[in-house]
Amino acid sequence: MPNPIRIAVDAMGGDHGPSVTVPGTALVLERKPDTRFVFFGRESEIAPLLSSRPALKAASEIVHTDDVVGMDAKPSQALRTGRRSSMWLTVDEVKNGMADIAVSGGNTGALMAMSTIHLRTLAGISRPAIAGLWPTLRGDSVVLDMGATIGADARQLVDFAVMGSALARIVFDTDRPTVGLLNVGVEEMKGGEEVREAAQMLRDGGFAMDYRGFVEGDDIGKGTTDVVVTEGFSGNIALKAAEGTARQISTILRTALQASWRTKIGYLLAKPAFDALREKMDPSNSNGGVFLGLNGVVIKSHGGSDAEGFAAALELGHDMARYELLSKITAGLATYDRTREAETASEGGALIS
Amino acid sequence: MPNPIRIAVDAMGGDHGPSVTVPGTALVLERKPDTRFVFFGRESEIAPLLSSRPALKAASEIVHTDDVVGMDAKPSQALRTGRRSSMWLTVDEVKNGMADIAVSGGNTGALMAMSTIHLRTLAGISRPAIAGLWPTLRGDSVVLDMGATIGADARQLVDFAVMGSALARIVFDTDRPTVGLLNVGVEEMKGGEEVREAAQMLRDGGFAMDYRGFVEGDDIGKGTTDVVVTEGFSGNIALKAAEGTARQISTILRTALQASWRTKIGYLLAKPAFDALREKMDPSNSNGGVFLGLNGVVIKSHGGSDAEGFAAALELGHDMARYELLSKITAGLATYDRTREAETASEGGALIS
Repeated sequence: MPNPIRIAVDAMGGDHGPSVTVPGTALVLERKPDTRFVFFGRESEIAPLLSSRPALKAASEIVHTDDVVGMDAKPSQALRTGRRSSMWLTVDEVKNGMADIAVSGGNTGALMAMSTIHLRTLAGISRPAIAGLWPTLRGDSVVLDMGATIGADARQLVDFAVMGSALARIVFDTDRPTVGLLNVGVEEMKGGEEVREAAQMLRDGGFAMDYRGFVEGDDIGKGTTDVVVTEGFSGNIALKAAEGTARQISTILRTALQASWRTKIGYLLAKPAFDALREKMDPSNSNGGVFLGLNGVVIKSHGGSDAEGFAAALELGHDMARYELLSKITAGLATYDRTREAETASEGGALIS
Repeated sequence: MPNPIRIAVDAMGGDHGPSVTVPGTALVLERKPDTRFVFFGRESEIAPLLSSRPALKAASEIVHTDDVVGMDAKPSQALRTGRRSSMWLTVDEVKNGMADIAVSGGNTGALMAMSTIHLRTLAGISRPAIAGLWPTLRGDSVVLDMGATIGADARQLVDFAVMGSALARIVFDTDRPTVGLLNVGVEEMKGGEEVREAAQMLRDGGFAMDYRGFVEGDDIGKGTTDVVVTEGFSGNIALKAAEGTARQISTILRTALQASWRTKIGYLLAKPAFDALREKMDPSNSNGGVFLGLNGVVIKSHGGSDAEGFAAALELGHDMARYELLSKITAGLATYDRTREAETASEGGALIS
């Protein structure tokens, strides 16, 4: 029997705090009984929710703290004043090797700042990235960077491709995930310099991925590749533009379906189709931004998630720990560095340290 | 009675050529009788379509050419070999002052290259932009750059804001359109340097626009501002991600609605709601990428448009000519330059030429 997976949970994170985070962990324990939890937050709010769930209680520990990072706190402020916050302690548990993974539904900027400062980036990685699972016509795809940092040079884009592929190998259970580099379609302008250079490196690389070349914005929803790589500005904007479009369509449709008795009845009859759509597009089925590139894995759950959504983020974390995401990433980066060193050497240059 | 608006039409552009472009112009003539057309392309294909439409024939002229730029021709190749093409001649008509506006459904890259080389950028503008009308919950918004060039410095983003506002003043018939600068949401990383600098310039500027600060990707679909400004890489990716999401939702829904007799009947009853959605999201109602920043206005209609969609692009062009888009842009840029010169002078520096 393998070791249990230990998840550090920021019990206070998200819009609903323990009333969502505790029931969320309960769902995970039912599906993945080899999970253990450490809750960070107000014991007076967490403990009652555990005492009505004996199985969860037996698999859990509470570390009390009164401090909570506000959902609209500035990251710099959270860093200065939040060293006793539930969020910091959650990340700290991974840093100290006491948990395999940290999950929080709190303030994204604060969580990223705390994770980066405290866990530090992996050797050879200059910037972390946020990877997300994007629902597509073909199942989910891994998209990164969703907005950890603005801009990326060629090497950073290649790092993202390596890290995203490692995640895709676990989530999609495939050996050589397909990878696309996000680009624009107009021929003359194809690719900024960084994107073209990254494409060249990925073609030459010998990585454990099936690099498929450039993809465009509409390829994400089609599911053209398992992994879509871009820098954080355009990644964040793509994500929000897609979410905005989905919300726009649902708002228009909802209003139009309420317009007459005929359409209301039509809606009731067609309801299974709308349910299927909701199920396929629901972000809570693939909830969680995964912070990659750090010495430890941290997952940001959506602040507004319900227990089911929070459970999805926890389960994602469980799988990443069980199938050793971090060592897969490290191995991928090492391959890359070996290739690069060999190339540099064969070009007669000095090895880059 | 005002002078007629003269539109140069690349009759061969788009996937369907004259069979769409000619009927499209006929629709426009019915709605805007003060329009005149010059068709560039194969007379043998255009003339028969005109002879069955006497009113259109009386308002039109044909300039014959056999050459057509292929939909997948490289822009560089089109520039070298396409000097007798219907596309080049269409742009040339604007260059020579014989037409107020040029419309083509052809290859975007080739059209942009020909327009830029032949019309050249306006004084003070270093790069053209492609503006599009984006359907939102509140009506359309102007979004630019949709992908003319990759990257933009602060001054270029301000230029885009000025040009987009001029277009919005015409299309939305408003004096001070609201303008937002597209940005990402995570506090710590807010804005690359260019974006933050452009925001400062827009706040200080005294432009004929109501600058509202940063907006995020999901604000586009909400219609938070009349104009959304961003550089071409993220603009193109936002556009395609949104289109991809719309197509993804419609694919899932279509399949799910066909799944049973119950949902099929529901669909039939709810059909007015789906028609309303299609109408509101239909790109052919707001068809056309407007090339801004050149000495002359060129509109790119979607290659796959039908006659109604092509007509929408032509009508957009008609209004832009009638309400003097170019002089509005020039005036906006002049305001900006005066402000900048005054500031530079008051700082005790030399005037920037």
